[in-house]
Amino acid sequence: MALKTPIEYVESLRALKVNAYIGNEKVDSPVDHPAIAPHVNTVSKIYELAQNPEHKGLITTESHLTGREINRFTHIFMSTDDLLCKIKMLRLLGQTTGTCFQRCVGLDAMNASYAISYEIDKAKGTDYHERFKTYLTGIQDNDLIVAGAMTDPKGNRTKSPSQQDDPDQYVRVVERRPDGVVIRGAKLHNTGGINSHEILVLPGTALKPEEADYAIACAVPVDAEGVTLIFGRQSNDDRKMQGSSIDIGNPRFGVVGGEVMLVFDDVFVPNERVFLNGETEFVGHMVNYFATWHRANYGGCKGGNADVLIGATAKVAQIHGVEKNTIVKDKIIEMIHLMETCYAGAIGASAAGYALPCGSYMVEPMMANTVKQNITRNVYAVGRLAHDIAGGYLATLPEEAAFDNPDIGKWVKKYHLCNEGDDVMERVKYGRYIENAASTTTLVEAMHGAGSPQAQRIVMLGLGNLKKKVGMAEAVINGDDDVLSLTIGGKLVSGKDDSEN
Amino acid sequence: MALKTPIEYVESLRALKVNAYIGNEKVDSPVDHPAIAPHVNTVSKIYELAQNPEHKGLITTESHLTGREINRFTHIFMSTDDLLCKIKMLRLLGQTTGTCFQRCVGLDAMNASYAISYEIDKAKGTDYHERFKTYLTGIQDNDLIVAGAMTDPKGNRTKSPSQQDDPDQYVRVVERRPDGVVIRGAKLHNTGGINSHEILVLPGTALKPEEADYAIACAVPVDAEGVTLIFGRQSNDDRKMQGSSIDIGNPRFGVVGGEVMLVFDDVFVPNERVFLNGETEFVGHMVNYFATWHRANYGGCKGGNADVLIGATAKVAQIHGVEKNTIVKDKIIEMIHLMETCYAGAIGASAAGYALPCGSYMVEPMMANTVKQNITRNVYAVGRLAHDIAGGYLATLPEEAAFDNPDIGKWVKKYHLCNEGDDVMERVKYGRYIENAASTTTLVEAMHGAGSPQAQRIVMLGLGNLKKKVGMAEAVINGDDDVLSLTIGGKLVSGKDDSEN
Amino acid sequence: MALKTPIEYVESLRALKVNAYIGNEKVDSPVDHPAIAPHVNTVSKIYELAQNPEHKGLITTESHLTGREINRFTHIFMSTDDLLCKIKMLRLLGQTTGTCFQRCVGLDAMNASYAISYEIDKAKGTDYHERFKTYLTGIQDNDLIVAGAMTDPKGNRTKSPSQQDDPDQYVRVVERRPDGVVIRGAKLHNTGGINSHEILVLPGTALKPEEADYAIACAVPVDAEGVTLIFGRQSNDDRKMQGSSIDIGNPRFGVVGGEVMLVFDDVFVPNERVFLNGETEFVGHMVNYFATWHRANYGGCKGGNADVLIGATAKVAQIHGVEKNTIVKDKIIEMIHLMETCYAGAIGASAAGYALPCGSYMVEPMMANTVKQNITRNVYAVGRLAHDIAGGYLATLPEEAAFDNPDIGKWVKKYHLCNEGDDVMERVKYGRYIENAASTTTLVEAMHGAGSPQAQRIVMLGLGNLKKKVGMAEAVINGDDDVLSLTIGGKLVSGKDDSEN
Amino acid sequence: MALKTPIEYVESLRALKVNAYIGNEKVDSPVDHPAIAPHVNTVSKIYELAQNPEHKGLITTESHLTGREINRFTHIFMSTDDLLCKIKMLRLLGQTTGTCFQRCVGLDAMNASYAISYEIDKAKGTDYHERFKTYLTGIQDNDLIVAGAMTDPKGNRTKSPSQQDDPDQYVRVVERRPDGVVIRGAKLHNTGGINSHEILVLPGTALKPEEADYAIACAVPVDAEGVTLIFGRQSNDDRKMQGSSIDIGNPRFGVVGGEVMLVFDDVFVPNERVFLNGETEFVGHMVNYFATWHRANYGGCKGGNADVLIGATAKVAQIHGVEKNTIVKDKIIEMIHLMETCYAGAIGASAAGYALPCGSYMVEPMMANTVKQNITRNVYAVGRLAHDIAGGYLATLPEEAAFDNPDIGKWVKKYHLCNEGDDVMERVKYGRYIENAASTTTLVEAMHGAGSPQAQRIVMLGLGNLKKKVGMAEAVINGDDDVLSLTIGGKLVSGKDDSEN
Repeated sequence: MALKTPIEYVESLRALKVNAYIGNEKVDSPVDHPAIAPHVNTVSKIYELAQNPEHKGLITTESHLTGREINRFTHIFMSTDDLLCKIKMLRLLGQTTGTCFQRCVGLDAMNASYAISYEIDKAKGTDYHERFKTYLTGIQDNDLIVAGAMTDPKGNRTKSPSQQDDPDQYVRVVERRPDGVVIRGAKLHNTGGINSHEILVLPGTALKPEEADYAIACAVPVDAEGVTLIFGRQSNDDRKMQGSSIDIGNPRFGVVGGEVMLVFDDVFVPNERVFLNGETEFVGHMVNYFATWHRANYGGCKGGNADVLIGATAKVAQIHGVEKNTIVKDKIIEMIHLMETCYAGAIGASAAGYALPCGSYMVEPMMANTVKQNITRNVYAVGRLAHDIAGGYLATLPEEAAFDNPDIGKWVKKYHLCNEGDDVMERVKYGRYIENAASTTTLVEAMHGAGSPQAQRIVMLGLGNLKKKVGMAEAVINGDDDVLSLTIGGKLVSGKDDSEN
Repeated sequence: MALKTPIEYVESLRALKVNAYIGNEKVDSPVDHPAIAPHVNTVSKIYELAQNPEHKGLITTESHLTGREINRFTHIFMSTDDLLCKIKMLRLLGQTTGTCFQRCVGLDAMNASYAISYEIDKAKGTDYHERFKTYLTGIQDNDLIVAGAMTDPKGNRTKSPSQQDDPDQYVRVVERRPDGVVIRGAKLHNTGGINSHEILVLPGTALKPEEADYAIACAVPVDAEGVTLIFGRQSNDDRKMQGSSIDIGNPRFGVVGGEVMLVFDDVFVPNERVFLNGETEFVGHMVNYFATWHRANYGGCKGGNADVLIGATAKVAQIHGVEKNTIVKDKIIEMIHLMETCYAGAIGASAAGYALPCGSYMVEPMMANTVKQNITRNVYAVGRLAHDIAGGYLATLPEEAAFDNPDIGKWVKKYHLCNEGDDVMERVKYGRYIENAASTTTLVEAMHGAGSPQAQRIVMLGLGNLKKKVGMAEAVINGDDDVLSLTIGGKLVSGKDDSEN
Repeated sequence: MALKTPIEYVESLRALKVNAYIGNEKVDSPVDHPAIAPHVNTVSKIYELAQNPEHKGLITTESHLTGREINRFTHIFMSTDDLLCKIKMLRLLGQTTGTCFQRCVGLDAMNASYAISYEIDKAKGTDYHERFKTYLTGIQDNDLIVAGAMTDPKGNRTKSPSQQDDPDQYVRVVERRPDGVVIRGAKLHNTGGINSHEILVLPGTALKPEEADYAIACAVPVDAEGVTLIFGRQSNDDRKMQGSSIDIGNPRFGVVGGEVMLVFDDVFVPNERVFLNGETEFVGHMVNYFATWHRANYGGCKGGNADVLIGATAKVAQIHGVEKNTIVKDKIIEMIHLMETCYAGAIGASAAGYALPCGSYMVEPMMANTVKQNITRNVYAVGRLAHDIAGGYLATLPEEAAFDNPDIGKWVKKYHLCNEGDDVMERVKYGRYIENAASTTTLVEAMHGAGSPQAQRIVMLGLGNLKKKVGMAEAVINGDDDVLSLTIGGKLVSGKDDSEN
Repeated sequence: MALKTPIEYVESLRALKVNAYIGNEKVDSPVDHPAIAPHVNTVSKIYELAQNPEHKGLITTESHLTGREINRFTHIFMSTDDLLCKIKMLRLLGQTTGTCFQRCVGLDAMNASYAISYEIDKAKGTDYHERFKTYLTGIQDNDLIVAGAMTDPKGNRTKSPSQQDDPDQYVRVVERRPDGVVIRGAKLHNTGGINSHEILVLPGTALKPEEADYAIACAVPVDAEGVTLIFGRQSNDDRKMQGSSIDIGNPRFGVVGGEVMLVFDDVFVPNERVFLNGETEFVGHMVNYFATWHRANYGGCKGGNADVLIGATAKVAQIHGVEKNTIVKDKIIEMIHLMETCYAGAIGASAAGYALPCGSYMVEPMMANTVKQNITRNVYAVGRLAHDIAGGYLATLPEEAAFDNPDIGKWVKKYHLCNEGDDVMERVKYGRYIENAASTTTLVEAMHGAGSPQAQRIVMLGLGNLKKKVGMAEAVINGDDDVLSLTIGGKLVSGKDDSEN
């Protein structure tokens, strides 16, 4: 069993018998559907790059379980270097595809399962960790795609899972059998779910002791009985159905991750695929592990996406003849600054990572949270600057086919050409890329993926340790000469340990 | 001849023989095409409100030319009260339709033509002003829609019209006849052009003396020979073709103004419809008049649109149960603050308006420019906050039809419901409204309509009068006791006149 | 009795027997103290301008009580034109002095007293309004300075006046006599208090019915028995004591308003000087009236101050040779934009003002609140840009005297000169102006004067009328064809009255 | 020779015969002058911490030259761990002192000298590197303070050194002797210069080939003949002269770095102290090395300073009773977020560092530049939020002595107390800390230290490599399947090397 080729990947998807709907229509082979093709292409691209010796060590690595070469998207982070390589890989893939490449959720969900299963076992004498390692070895050896499934529908946001009018608003166990559990509910916003092999279900929120039925982490094949995948509607996605080769913006790779809604209609999961089952006290911890890793990622992938967007914007400026204008350059600098800030934070969070009890590595959580918080602002700001520089034609350009229309094509071309000898379709393509790469779906993903902005702020308040900061102010102002300590990520760096405070 | 009813308006459009393309397809009766219907509805709504005595004096007013009651969108601003009423009307219509209602460009273009034709006549002994008054009287009496056509394709942005590789990149006169002129070129981004009766063509940029052929202002019926209208592609507009009643976001009124590209393929314009012809020295002035009025407008219309967007966002917060959350309220306050800032500026610019030589009124230009500059920032910020509050479902919601699908409809509904007893489609509708009201096309319109942000900044630098400000600093710091003067909009308010400085 | 000359003003201050402390020192004649001199100069400048026929109508106006010419700072706003003239006057004075000119608090406090005394009388049959008119006529005829006293010490911010550990944390009546009341407490942040003739005490917060003793509005001469004035310490104010003629930044007029703490140690106030006494239900209303007028002011005065700061910054850019640099110009444009936004809002709020029951005019409250909210941001942003452009010498420049030092003066001069032939002290002066005009005291005043930012936000939320906005969204989205109404400042502009909603 | 104790440090300063002026006054022993004492205390604190075994390895390290234990502020960065330890040390010291601790300029200047001297020697066969190592060994062994001297007066900013009206506007060699050089000129903004032992002079800007006389890097004892130190005036520094124990804000450590102007009046520097002399082609490189390291530092030191400021702000919120208010907490979160963003970037830049030719380590330059760029914004934003939360008393508080005044002390105390039992002076102290820690001098230092914001932007544009980004956009959009490469800090991370492009 070796790293799959892109063709093997596509064929392996075709072999699945998924129960999938694209919008309102049941589709037997989503992999061949135009709505899904760009997302399949994106994942195929990762398979392709993994075959390329020039990316060995970045896209691939050695499994700490088997010693075999695996795709890094199935790897457990065993060092800060692994954390750093992840961020660098994300940036490279962001640059290569100009879109979301879907695999981070599964990667971080696997890492959260690995770490928490170990901690539960230590505390409770369970054997989740071995189960998960066996599962993971299979994923690695078969080079499979695992989609993480985190976000529950949530119903009324002020109520906990057990308080909802409808108890199914969070995925839950409805039956426990000797050989496994039966789960019911749904998971929303599943990036890449429709072109993955496996779904790794994790709880989406911390739970109270009495909410044990909601405490379930388990793996489900995408074509398991009772699983339905419903592909969502996204900005301008109808253009994909029309055979557009330009107006999609990024026709090869699409402009987002291809999100599906997953419905679990009483799905049976055998014990060997269950990695947490009722241990409510570990759930908040697991959610937090996942979210912390995931928040740092955005500095990598969105950094890479922004490179492409900045490039497209600079290209339009060149076409318009304004690339040397000082103000245009200053706006492009601002785009660079905003996204490099996010990337720098992701590198910082990774470099400052530390070992978890199981031996795998966590990113520094304060830094990881700043990265995602900045993403919720800077991706918008960068999109706005792209609009500013590129100009009004983003909003009023006739559709692609009009450029070839026998009656009006000549005019549509003539009046969108900037310089004699230009290829007018180049201007159209870069404009359409910008239009779509900074569209509602893309922006909303940057806002709410890996947790809404307020989620990060609550974490920051806790990590910010105001009590300690007040103590610092007291020491400075009142001349207290106690030795201060420096702690990063909850770990003592220097000075005396005051962690009991 | 009286104010038209909505039905009369629609019938009057059907009677036109326009040469129109929607995307790639020739359409004989655009008024009945689903892509155009929302825009027709919006304008119809104005006709409807004009019939309503409760809005008499705001939506309608008395013509200063004939004394007859007319729609305010065909009125010349004869006082600061007229300027203020315009802004208030725009806000009300923005609130009523939640979208662009298309008529401001024509209104401001008519006002620019009225004012400049007077000034040319005074300087040159021409009779443009009388011509224009005759034309305008016809518009008022027939209650017609006039689309202003300003923006030329512009080719290479660093070159003036006469330097372009293709001389047609700016609309120009290609033939002068005793009875009129023949024009060639195109105008882009024509809001409402496809459901208007008339096009008022104005130059789009200041010109050099040798560019007299580009100095042309004239009126053309939309169905004049040689005119082609090409409707642009906009965010999610394909949904209109699918009979969507929800996913369009604002199914009745659409989410932007319905922009077309206008092509003038050697169109003859008789003299009585020509209002500037070769007088290059007045062109920059005319562009500036138009832009100044137009920039103030955005505080009205976008203020009204934002009211609806804020309302939709607050509604989603209610559905989610978080409307009393302090942070959610604070974000809504920010949305209010940002847009009321723009509205306050528009009111200020109008109240501080002053009479032009012809007797009509100009808004205070510094204030008008601040309004538009703030729009280019605040509309984005407001959209971002709407995304923040409404949540991730904006990006992944299944399409409307899926809610009624016999197989999956029950799940799509179940897992998007927040509270027992809610109508799930309400949540969908408000989400779709937000998705579309803060989409690329809408945002880009806010960025570039009435001039790109840099255009306003250049004007502000001129109006800011740094020489005078340096003088103020010198007077304060060096103890100079000269009497200072206060000038607003270039007019002396108090102190001695130092306008020669 | 006519308008005072500057000399008469200074002499009238010398005649007062105030109990004043400057810092830690009792000072019998504050008017002659170097800490106070700049603030006296500033007010003197207003007296001077009022004498100048070129400012007649702006700085002076006709009393609606007596028909006599008065200083506008003692005038009741009897029209929107009066509101507009106030803002314009503030901008002119801001430009003339480059600092706070202290008189707005008293002006707005007098207007609040005028309006509320009328409303109490109507409701309660009292005679406060006549008392106040008599008092005001004296102020107008004697051309006196009235300092408004609003802000109580407030103790614990989460407790109301009657809940405080110390009942004196809000000014209160400690004894009621047939001929008057005895008050105790303090008022903080009194701008201009030490060089005024009168103090107008108003409640600082809304009150509960049981807090009648805190419901007191009255006028007190600054030298009344029991009144103590304690001048605060402000940024770099020690430089004033050293005979500096440059390092103060604005040596003639100072850089803030000269704030004092007022202590009322059981001060007797005769009935004819009492304008509200126990009517708790009117107190919130009075505070709100005052704050609303006052918040709009900042667009005028800070706009004028910013003109000087921008001028000083542009001057430094000239001295450094960078005034033509595109980025420098763009930053100056941003400074202009930010402050003109505030000014435009103040003009808007004034133009949209409306009549109160007593016949005087209130500014439009939403707009007024946006102005102050923007001030709390934009003054900081403008100061930051001034720092950016002016450069690091703002932070490290040797003191003024060093430039004349026999040993080092030559070097200090040589190494701060930019071009041969420049006067190096010009560079120093403008740098010192910027240093001080954007210092902590100035910034904090912009932040907290007329209410802290959160105060404005709470008002905006109320005025924003979310219920109505939700209704608009419902109407647009659900196709409700009810006639909408436009209300501005709580007044119906168009459409049917739905104010009962 | 061992690490100095604080007392030894102070005595070593007393032994120097500096020619120093504080403002206008010649001072023989600056170390004992109240204007200098806080800055001496700050550096003493570092000596103290270096003695503490709990900080061994962070504040101290092992010299790569001698293997002896040295203070990290005299160490050459020999690994990314050294870069990381620097940032962590800066944060700890920022937390401990709440101010600038002065030693980073010298540290980075020494590192720049070490690296560039090596590179010159390699290219030119000179022996600068050995000279510098000898010099550095002496500094390490004697545990001395080295102040870096970078910023020249610069005269007209649009002219290069040789074009200035006055050739001394940049430090230059005026005489070359066999045994050394004579230099003339001045360096501004020298942090810590007055309480250091040595000055390390580096060029302040890139030079043209014909400007060899300006190409000089050398070390000068602070008490060398011809050197004059002139201490600058900073915000509220007069309070230090008055024996204030509170109003200074940070009485022990001061609120900035204690900047001096250094004058070199024909100072002889022997050859062994000269590390670059005429090699103009290396000067831009040297400036860039210094600036890049220095820009990353700000994430550490300002991060630590912000911890104290946030602590002081939270303390005031507690005193006022509002620490649980949701909006107050949200503003504190924002303060945390803004500064942790800078810290994360500094950690990222350090972790991504790479080896220079000499074997020492450079931080990743794009990230380092984003850090400083964010500092120029975020320090202002954090200061503003501190003002917002702390309230208006920052601007009007009476001076410290008034609290003990026999007449008014009781009132000043009474009316600044929030809760019975509080120590009113605590509220005063924290307020004064905030007032001074976010004052003009502090802010301007954050703006212009390590280069003005525009300097970072120019570097970012170069590092941003628009050509490569355009290529990425072309590859994505046009379907080019070339292998992309990832380069960070100019180093290939993955993919094929295209550095020749």
